[in-house]
Amino acid sequence: MINIHRLTSHLHDLSTIGKTKEGGVNRFSYTNEERLASEQVKQYMVAAGLTVEYDAVGNLIGSLEGEDDLPVVLLGSHIDTVPNGGKYDGSLGVLTAIEVIHSLNEKDIRLKHPLKVIAFKDEEGTRFGFGMIGSRAVAGTLTNDDLKRVDQQGISIEQAMEQYGFDRDQFQSAKIENVKCYLEVHIEQGKVLENHDASVGNVTGIAGPVWFQFTLTGLSEHAGATPMNQRQDALVGASLIIAEAEKIAKEFPTAVATVGKLSVKPNGVNVIPGEVTWTMDIRDIDKDTRDEVEQRIRQFADKIAIERRLDLKVSELQRVEPVRCDENIQEVICDSIKEIGEPVVSLPSGAGHDGMQFKDRFPIGMIFVRSKDGISHNPKEFSSEQDIEKAANVLYRSILKLDVK
Amino acid sequence: MINIHRLTSHLHDLSTIGKTKEGGVNRFSYTNEERLASEQVKQYMVAAGLTVEYDAVGNLIGSLEGEDDLPVVLLGSHIDTVPNGGKYDGSLGVLTAIEVIHSLNEKDIRLKHPLKVIAFKDEEGTRFGFGMIGSRAVAGTLTNDDLKRVDQQGISIEQAMEQYGFDRDQFQSAKIENVKCYLEVHIEQGKVLENHDASVGNVTGIAGPVWFQFTLTGLSEHAGATPMNQRQDALVGASLIIAEAEKIAKEFPTAVATVGKLSVKPNGVNVIPGEVTWTMDIRDIDKDTRDEVEQRIRQFADKIAIERRLDLKVSELQRVEPVRCDENIQEVICDSIKEIGEPVVSLPSGAGHDGMQFKDRFPIGMIFVRSKDGISHNPKEFSSEQDIEKAANVLYRSILKLDVK
Repeated sequence: MINIHRLTSHLHDLSTIGKTKEGGVNRFSYTNEERLASEQVKQYMVAAGLTVEYDAVGNLIGSLEGEDDLPVVLLGSHIDTVPNGGKYDGSLGVLTAIEVIHSLNEKDIRLKHPLKVIAFKDEEGTRFGFGMIGSRAVAGTLTNDDLKRVDQQGISIEQAMEQYGFDRDQFQSAKIENVKCYLEVHIEQGKVLENHDASVGNVTGIAGPVWFQFTLTGLSEHAGATPMNQRQDALVGASLIIAEAEKIAKEFPTAVATVGKLSVKPNGVNVIPGEVTWTMDIRDIDKDTRDEVEQRIRQFADKIAIERRLDLKVSELQRVEPVRCDENIQEVICDSIKEIGEPVVSLPSGAGHDGMQFKDRFPIGMIFVRSKDGISHNPKEFSSEQDIEKAANVLYRSILKLDVK
Repeated sequence: MINIHRLTSHLHDLSTIGKTKEGGVNRFSYTNEERLASEQVKQYMVAAGLTVEYDAVGNLIGSLEGEDDLPVVLLGSHIDTVPNGGKYDGSLGVLTAIEVIHSLNEKDIRLKHPLKVIAFKDEEGTRFGFGMIGSRAVAGTLTNDDLKRVDQQGISIEQAMEQYGFDRDQFQSAKIENVKCYLEVHIEQGKVLENHDASVGNVTGIAGPVWFQFTLTGLSEHAGATPMNQRQDALVGASLIIAEAEKIAKEFPTAVATVGKLSVKPNGVNVIPGEVTWTMDIRDIDKDTRDEVEQRIRQFADKIAIERRLDLKVSELQRVEPVRCDENIQEVICDSIKEIGEPVVSLPSGAGHDGMQFKDRFPIGMIFVRSKDGISHNPKEFSSEQDIEKAANVLYRSILKLDVK
């Protein structure tokens, strides 16, 4: 049904853009590597028979007209990465969607619904600590304030957009109206499918992440001449909070809390840290559980700050609510999995995805592909060619079913 | 006796070289800022009547001939800083020594002993995680292996020396033989003098620092899709060790343990940290106490690594033994303090100083100046003009006494 050789060859070629010496990939939003990758994907879209354009925020969109005047079917994922990320996360979803269209066109199969394949701008949030920029724009929820967020060099999203050649004032034009549904193929990034010996899975919903930035300020003094009991050491305070966050999250079976990014000032061997800044990513598929984990971590942080005469500032970087996948789309995906002779496994997504942004706007569905050892966001990230082929064929069948349903 | 206006004017002018926007100073070894500062100090030395040269590692040395053929008296300190450091730490000792010589020359007072004022290369160890490069060279203990240590960009000390214009192969020529003693004025960097309402102090000895680099390696996986109980999070492991190090050091009244520098890889908001590297600075005036603190921290770190399936590597960056100041020199300093009508306070130094490198080579003495709020390694570092003047006059008197003693 789909051409797996073409798909894996595209996947390989795209992974060479932004390749790191450790074998991973660095592609951050509005950078040269990301531009090169977009131009490469554009060529695949054109070859697949899509009409290609960039929208105002830099989403790469390939469009296919439908035979009837119907709402549009959206397919997609992203091509940006975390630092030293893997080659499947994001890219696989974009390239699988293109491959499905390419195969349909080769077979002269025409769809009733118009269709768009989108490579969304900055899903990961690596550069600005604020992800899913492109899908927010498509959902129409991106705001002027969002565009003022800055990266570590102090460059704002709007400045980066302008430098990259997009018209910041037009960002609201990226909103897409009259959508039938959104479908995405993505690697699982966990071990559930592996534990079930399943190649592909139907996603039931996506756990919503809330991201914070914590800044703890003490006093940077001389490491040799300041007795232990007189210190206002920001790093010891941060360490106690980080250790406690793990303890709190562990009390809930599905909750996760992660400090992924941290920096110390002034960062000298013999200087007591005067300021530590770190991010906190908290998730659960249940909103109430997530709220409880968040509250307990923040209360503990407040207590540490007071006890240790430190100043604590917490700012919210993003808050995405958990979202359920559409029952009708889930049924279509499960039927397609059965048709190709695979066991049907349904599972929630612990990781966030662009589809979350479409909550309350239009229905979404997702197809997961088994991840080796559950590893992702790492050069060791791997999904087999066999599993990828099955996922692409599930997407192929799902699109045909949804076109008449 | 000395000219305080000239001294404070030099101190101010030197602090403008490498000035940061927060009002601190950045001067790291073998950089342009450090070169500019050295050239400025060279001018002050020449004006004071000293014959100036750079030795093979880049120590700036101003020499004065003695009337008799006697061992040389060394005076000095350093002009490099920690990141965003203060304007007194190091610079004050170099400029005070120059001012004393300048004043002696103005009064046509000739010393029997030859004398050298040295601005030692890289006392702080900011750039290479390895301090006191210049004083080690003067002591003759700097080794070929030491020169292979690298900074964060992978540039080694020997490469930095060559790039700066020094001949790395000549580094052993920096050793100084036939020395009578070494004297240094330095800010206290603690609150002991302030608590005693004293301007200056006589130093009894210097606590020896031992510096380690810890690297803890786990697995960087997706922050959303990896359940808490399956993680090998290097940062949570590091946090537990950092918090415990404080707890252990607090059990001993004079011990200190500090994690000043820390970095996280890959450092993405939604990626579990796969590797954390940090430094540990442990000090005590008593060697046995320091050894005990070190052993207990390392044992705890080993335990955490095993429990959490993390890989721990610990490398020693430097180990300097505590050193006693010479009894004879201490007596001279105390007499000089009495002569200017100040209370005599004797105290140990918690911070390390270049003089430590001269242990078992020749006698040393140090004069401390009161630090406001005990703050140093910080733009808020401050010592008053009145206190500085007193310290400079104590040095002036001590040199005259030692010249005939």
